[in-house]
Amino acid sequence: MSSPFDILAETEPGGRRGQLHLPHRTVQTPVFMPVGTAGTVKAVPQDTLESLGAEIILGNTYHLYLRPGHELIRRLGGLHRFISWPRAMLTDSGGFQVFSLSALRKVSDEGVRFRSHLDGSSHFFTPEHSMDVQIALGADICMAFDECTEYPADRSRAEESLRLTMAWARRSLSHFRAHRGEAPWTDPKGCCMQCFGIVQGGMYTDLRRQCAERLVEMDFDGYAIGGLSVGEPRALTLEMIAEVLPLLPKDKPRYVMGVGYPDEIEQYARMGVDMMDCVLPTRAARHGLLFTSEGRLNIKAKRYSEDQSPPDPACGCPVCRRYTRAYLRHLMQAGEPLSAILNTVHNLAYYLGIMERVRNSLQETSRPAAKISVL
Amino acid sequence: MSSPFDILAETEPGGRRGQLHLPHRTVQTPVFMPVGTAGTVKAVPQDTLESLGAEIILGNTYHLYLRPGHELIRRLGGLHRFISWPRAMLTDSGGFQVFSLSALRKVSDEGVRFRSHLDGSSHFFTPEHSMDVQIALGADICMAFDECTEYPADRSRAEESLRLTMAWARRSLSHFRAHRGEAPWTDPKGCCMQCFGIVQGGMYTDLRRQCAERLVEMDFDGYAIGGLSVGEPRALTLEMIAEVLPLLPKDKPRYVMGVGYPDEIEQYARMGVDMMDCVLPTRAARHGLLFTSEGRLNIKAKRYSEDQSPPDPACGCPVCRRYTRAYLRHLMQAGEPLSAILNTVHNLAYYLGIMERVRNSLQETSRPAAKISVL
Repeated sequence: MSSPFDILAETEPGGRRGQLHLPHRTVQTPVFMPVGTAGTVKAVPQDTLESLGAEIILGNTYHLYLRPGHELIRRLGGLHRFISWPRAMLTDSGGFQVFSLSALRKVSDEGVRFRSHLDGSSHFFTPEHSMDVQIALGADICMAFDECTEYPADRSRAEESLRLTMAWARRSLSHFRAHRGEAPWTDPKGCCMQCFGIVQGGMYTDLRRQCAERLVEMDFDGYAIGGLSVGEPRALTLEMIAEVLPLLPKDKPRYVMGVGYPDEIEQYARMGVDMMDCVLPTRAARHGLLFTSEGRLNIKAKRYSEDQSPPDPACGCPVCRRYTRAYLRHLMQAGEPLSAILNTVHNLAYYLGIMERVRNSLQETSRPAAKISVL
Repeated sequence: MSSPFDILAETEPGGRRGQLHLPHRTVQTPVFMPVGTAGTVKAVPQDTLESLGAEIILGNTYHLYLRPGHELIRRLGGLHRFISWPRAMLTDSGGFQVFSLSALRKVSDEGVRFRSHLDGSSHFFTPEHSMDVQIALGADICMAFDECTEYPADRSRAEESLRLTMAWARRSLSHFRAHRGEAPWTDPKGCCMQCFGIVQGGMYTDLRRQCAERLVEMDFDGYAIGGLSVGEPRALTLEMIAEVLPLLPKDKPRYVMGVGYPDEIEQYARMGVDMMDCVLPTRAARHGLLFTSEGRLNIKAKRYSEDQSPPDPACGCPVCRRYTRAYLRHLMQAGEPLSAILNTVHNLAYYLGIMERVRNSLQETSRPAAKISVL
């Protein structure tokens, strides 16, 4: 089989236009991945996601492990089949959710004991268990189990967290390699599930470098930069990404987790980030915040009550083609379920549209990729 | 202009296959009308409603008057334009909601004073005001302002309620006729807004007869049977409908308000009811109750947790074609917004499908309509 990641074009600042060949889809990169926490991108039916052009969505290992359970999903043929999503899917490792959602947790070298946010029941996650769960779900891309360093964290805390993340990365990859053949589906193209490592290190550039170098030695299928968008100033996010990107192999996909605002995802994509995910477009939508070519629009505001223009006059999405700001405001005021649906569809269309424009622009302004790929 | 209601075929038991020519749509009858209380059929985007074949939906005068306000909707071109629904729409008079939703109300011959369920503010509805609001909304069909008799009600209470309903019907119609030209839209076909009277009378057949006869003298565009499905046994609902139907003019549409279960709407349609509406398919959907060819299905039940069959194996709706009971159960358990969307789409498809089958069957088993229409 050819390389799972083809770079079609590259630009001087490092931006890449690529194709990521996954078992369920060849994904055009740079790509934004809508978040489908509990096996659904909140408030959007799968056929709508398809028509918006989403090629890969996220699933959350922590949530799906707790409900409905990974063994149930395995028995039903894996997550793609369970939720009827034939395109690509990535699952996070559960690490971030354990750290951000679970009230009681206890970390040891072996793993993390935590209590469910649903019923308080006690659970133990190890790197091996996280991989088992992700393989049972059958994602196209599994993420190594990591410890997300909180912000702010002092140096000794960041070092300790990094030590765990690197040890767990090695165990994750080793377990993944031994069990990757146990996916609940067979891929007709012969593509394999992939496993990505996650660069941590808090906001310490030397720790980030150290982590990146060690993970690259382990030879993951791709590399993520985690522990960002955890409350730090945006300049620091950018600094960490700029520090780490050059250390990652050019021929592997690079994924920045949990970002960001529309201008951020465009900026990072132009710097050479191939994949991003964020709850922002979907979560903000449910709170009435729309992203538009004219900036952010709080659809709850009184001034939109008789505004007959579309949410974004420059947008060609199904919501902007059909509905007015006045109607979207009314739906939000009335607490109608259609509010979340329409707001989310627009925001996702906007995010996916940004990535499409960036891909086109990377292709147009690129140097021939062949010259670059030997660097 | 030709008659606004054409009967295409009739059957021996009284069932009719017709066409109701309304300003925004020629509606095939018998028809089930999904309820769109606050300017949206809860959890269903308008394009989905269209693709399910909905030809006419309801709006609630009481809700839209309170929020966002009928004058706002008038300024924005009427309800069709406000919610982007180009097909037909019917508005109730607000009477039923005032009686069922408003904690404080005071009824006089002049009208009803009530407090908003939203903010407790005081409002006064008269027949004239109800018609003004409905004309501002610009529905294809406006309903006369009535007093819905509660169940059970003793005879003197039912008589008093009926007296009000008949006086208000006359005032509603007279005001409607004087102002029907003030719709916020102009119909290119030259069709006019219509006004329907509502037969009340509690569960007393002689009062029902008396009401029907008086309303028919007033010459409404169509006739509704109201005050049913208010807690009475189903045999009584049927008795009232069977009593009233023969008293209504054959050449005008007949509408039974607020019914019913799938077998009920089929039964009433075969008896000669042309229009029905009910919150049941949409409301039940949000509580996990699905209507199927195999009966009612409570999708929350544990026994569906690994059931890979579609909600209704005999249904060809977009939900049954794509999703499993196991997934719908998971969505419900997880409290996901997609749950309400998919459940509602299925239930509406099921209801609309029943009416389509009934229409086809009425056409097939009919006597030639020409022989009947002279009776």
